[in-house]
Amino acid sequence: MTHSPATAGQLLRGIHDVGRDLRRGGYSRFAYGAAELDLREWFVAEAARRSMDTETDRNGVLWAWLPGPGDSCEQAVVTGSHLDSVPGGGEFDGPLGVASAFAAVDLLRARGFTADRALAIVAFPEEEGGRFGQACLGSQLMTGAMDADRALRLRDADGISLAEALAGAGIDPAHVGRDDEAIRRIGAFVELHVEQGRGLVDLGEPVAIGSSIIGHGLWRLTVAGQGNHAGATRMTERRDPVVAAGAIVVAARDAARAVKDARVTVGRIEPTPGGTNVIASCVDVWLDVRHPDDAEVVTLVAAIADRARVVAAAEGCEVTLVEESYGGSVRFDRPLRDRLAAVLPDAPHLDAGAGHDAGVLAGVVPTAMLFTRNPTGISHAPQEQVEDADAQSGAAALADVLQDLLRSESPRRV
Amino acid sequence: MTHSPATAGQLLRGIHDVGRDLRRGGYSRFAYGAAELDLREWFVAEAARRSMDTETDRNGVLWAWLPGPGDSCEQAVVTGSHLDSVPGGGEFDGPLGVASAFAAVDLLRARGFTADRALAIVAFPEEEGGRFGQACLGSQLMTGAMDADRALRLRDADGISLAEALAGAGIDPAHVGRDDEAIRRIGAFVELHVEQGRGLVDLGEPVAIGSSIIGHGLWRLTVAGQGNHAGATRMTERRDPVVAAGAIVVAARDAARAVKDARVTVGRIEPTPGGTNVIASCVDVWLDVRHPDDAEVVTLVAAIADRARVVAAAEGCEVTLVEESYGGSVRFDRPLRDRLAAVLPDAPHLDAGAGHDAGVLAGVVPTAMLFTRNPTGISHAPQEQVEDADAQSGAAALADVLQDLLRSESPRRV
Repeated sequence: MTHSPATAGQLLRGIHDVGRDLRRGGYSRFAYGAAELDLREWFVAEAARRSMDTETDRNGVLWAWLPGPGDSCEQAVVTGSHLDSVPGGGEFDGPLGVASAFAAVDLLRARGFTADRALAIVAFPEEEGGRFGQACLGSQLMTGAMDADRALRLRDADGISLAEALAGAGIDPAHVGRDDEAIRRIGAFVELHVEQGRGLVDLGEPVAIGSSIIGHGLWRLTVAGQGNHAGATRMTERRDPVVAAGAIVVAARDAARAVKDARVTVGRIEPTPGGTNVIASCVDVWLDVRHPDDAEVVTLVAAIADRARVVAAAEGCEVTLVEESYGGSVRFDRPLRDRLAAVLPDAPHLDAGAGHDAGVLAGVVPTAMLFTRNPTGISHAPQEQVEDADAQSGAAALADVLQDLLRSESPRRV
Repeated sequence: MTHSPATAGQLLRGIHDVGRDLRRGGYSRFAYGAAELDLREWFVAEAARRSMDTETDRNGVLWAWLPGPGDSCEQAVVTGSHLDSVPGGGEFDGPLGVASAFAAVDLLRARGFTADRALAIVAFPEEEGGRFGQACLGSQLMTGAMDADRALRLRDADGISLAEALAGAGIDPAHVGRDDEAIRRIGAFVELHVEQGRGLVDLGEPVAIGSSIIGHGLWRLTVAGQGNHAGATRMTERRDPVVAAGAIVVAARDAARAVKDARVTVGRIEPTPGGTNVIASCVDVWLDVRHPDDAEVVTLVAAIADRARVVAAAEGCEVTLVEESYGGSVRFDRPLRDRLAAVLPDAPHLDAGAGHDAGVLAGVVPTAMLFTRNPTGISHAPQEQVEDADAQSGAAALADVLQDLLRSESPRRV
């Protein structure tokens, strides 16, 4: 079976209009929502064009297979990324890795390359946590990093549970959880991703090899005050948690600035009840805290919590802090990185500030990453960008890496 | 037709479980939502028990009538309030005025009083703006203070327009707008309401006469920055509008504290896109600003806007400010207040910090208010409270006032 080969850019243009968010700008493609299900259909269709068999596994991960000699799927070289987005996110975060994988398959075929082992392309669900609030949910379920029962009870903004969303997409929630069979099939995982900072722009290079993912946690800080009437309550009689939360957001940023390489972000803040003419009774503030050194994350969160308590007390409010997720720093598999470096001797090596499914899988299989240049340096926003030429440079680099890994010697298992 | 008379407390217990909000606490009773429609049924049933005919007018205002001699409805004495609530509001804000009106009718009948003119009880829709964001929407439509076409295009959080909500409740949107016929029937309007501050608690009295409503405006302040990735963007490279908005909330509160009798509240703040792992691209902050002197409101909003621009610029962000609504200070009709003062010589006179439909109607008919003591002083929150004895004191005071106004001499028309 033959088909016309496609570049990564051409492939992405096939989904250019899927999940556009006219209100926020950019794209909102939430796991198991209409747009992401359309992207899954696109994945299946692109796999079919390449005579690749597809399956959706117990955790909702999509797989497209090119079996090795004797139809073997053992010790496969696996590549891919995710299809979901943050709310109002960019076009490339996730889909670029999937499109580059299909484009790399086309490049390998054009070269007449014959593999000594299986190749699979994957798409993980809910990498962004844009729907259920838990980043890398699919890979965390597959590896057992997240408890299945806890995950199934997560609810989206409309109150729909993950269990209900899975059932709606034809996936039986009863079988969600650590999937040793899936893990055993992965000889190595290489995820290509759009760069989410300005590293490659500053270096003037199109493609980098990932060296690590910095540690990353999410805490929910709740400020409790006293709900009351906005008109009838004198300024001196208030215990207003929105005022306290405002000061806490500034204090958290100041704390981050004081620690080299730290990053602290509040992107979500929700007063309850949230009426315009009401002094709120409490406010939830989500703190995204990252640092390459895990110990620094712990110290920084403690410092922010201390400062928040002082600021809140000055407003007559109280603070509670709950860890919603935490992933320590990940250094990618050294031997695998060395193979990538040998194949791509000119590619710089970059740390990733963002979390990725590759970071989760690094706990159970040899894992590596490639990054493609983003000329704006902006990500998780509509301004995220990749030039067609860079996208194809990334796909070619991925093809080179896959060609190396698909040769007879097995990728080392950790 | 006879029925057993009811106290205001007994009447309120009939709707004690309608519209409870288990997530926020308290009650969420939104105009034309299931809970408020249940309250409308309760209103119609209580009217029927008292042989009062009911109607829903062009603007969705509920009326229950006791016609005067010769079935006249001209120059009626009108009392009542509203049934809707803020999100997670209290039990009494609105329904107390309606329940007290029915209880007052029972007291007048128990006294064997025969009126010389018509009495009507009303319930205005969307007084809180809890669904469509526009406070006193029903009275503003009736009096023409708000343009009907603009109102019909207002949308709730689910994107449902007022026009659609009205049609769903069986009210033809084509007939919404200034209702001269309804206004002509009102000889005087007296609204009883739970007090929303601590005035009566401090004075040790159960009931007060309202003297004025302080000026009240709502502005939406939008802070625009640069959306970006929370992990990949260095702290020094950020233009984070959430940080700017946090500082602006504190600055607005500080500005309010510096002006005697001013009240400034941010109860709603919404980052876009609002993901936890995303630096927001912009944040909407709603400023509720009130002062007895209209000129002070204008000066204060300008001062907050100036300060917000400076704070935002320091974060590389920009600010825009849009007035969403504004109502100047209202002093209630002096002759009508004098009649209430003569009937209730012991009642103190209080300014209201909150807006009310009575404040809107004051522009077209003689209007007065009564306030019933709230022992917590808290309103727009679950802790709002009224003791049964105070509720009945309020109903008795209202009955005394109505008895006076229903005598033959006409309430003066302004």
